Amino acid sequence: MTPEQMLDVAVEQARKGLAEGGIPIGAALFRDTGELLGAGHNRRVQNDDPSIHAETDAFRAAGRQRGYRSTIMVTTLSPCWYCSGLVRQFNIGAVVIGEARTFSGGHDWLSEHGVAVTLLDDKRCVAMMEDFIADRPELWAEDIGE
Amino acid sequence: MTPEQMLDVAVEQARKGLAEGGIPIGAALFRDTGELLGAGHNRRVQNDDPSIHAETDAFRAAGRQRGYRSTIMVTTLSPCWYCSGLVRQFNIGAVVIGEARTFSGGHDWLSEHGVAVTLLDDKRCVAMMEDFIADRPELWAEDIGE
Repeated sequence: MTPEQMLDVAVEQARKGLAEGGIPIGAALFRDTGELLGAGHNRRVQNDDPSIHAETDAFRAAGRQRGYRSTIMVTTLSPCWYCSGLVRQFNIGAVVIGEARTFSGGHDWLSEHGVAVTLLDDKRCVAMMEDFIADRPELWAEDIGE
Repeated sequence: MTPEQMLDVAVEQARKGLAEGGIPIGAALFRDTGELLGAGHNRRVQNDDPSIHAETDAFRAAGRQRGYRSTIMVTTLSPCWYCSGLVRQFNIGAVVIGEARTFSGGHDWLSEHGVAVTLLDDKRCVAMMEDFIADRPELWAEDIGE
């Protein structure tokens, strides 16, 4: 699977979240063989739960794994510090990011710590977040602790 | 409330987790006024969920909050990168740590980024983790991605 194909799964998740009235960020955890381990999206609004970002939802959906070095976290948006910390702690080997224009989290820090980071600058992802931030600035600020 | 009194709440959570057959790490989120917002413990085993560390469980239990600057995250063990990232992203103002002998996560990094860190070196916390790591080394390695 190409990074673009993996991103499609995360974009589908983000759209699902948006359709549910939530924050449109999606993620998926793959093996480097292309096997999908888990996918998810931000659930702050839907579950009234501030701890479920897209990446933590995908990580949870993948269940308990013994070792993440050969996994790839794919996310529609640059991972915040919380989600970057997840990637670093569990030694997730690679991160594929839809875009980092509307928000830039810890992806450079991950790069410095040996994570293979691919930034795609995907137009769908940028447009989805731009629209969301314009529509719901307070909700977005809440989600990133600002 | 003193840091030691707040730590007691986290220790009680860790013991609850241990009694459930889980990993004995507990946490609690307080306002700096002493109000308890939420408490929790690691639930990897109990919920079969790798995303629930003690700190993320306490954060979730506190529900959606608008601003964390005046909150204190109290945890029995030095927060791993995942939980340190949570603290940094949400601008949690202070962290009280039971011990950092058996595991050292991102607390120095948090300190560098303006979080007020108090390390108590609590004997109960050290003993609980030493016993757990000796009993269940594989489970502990899984929980910290090693």
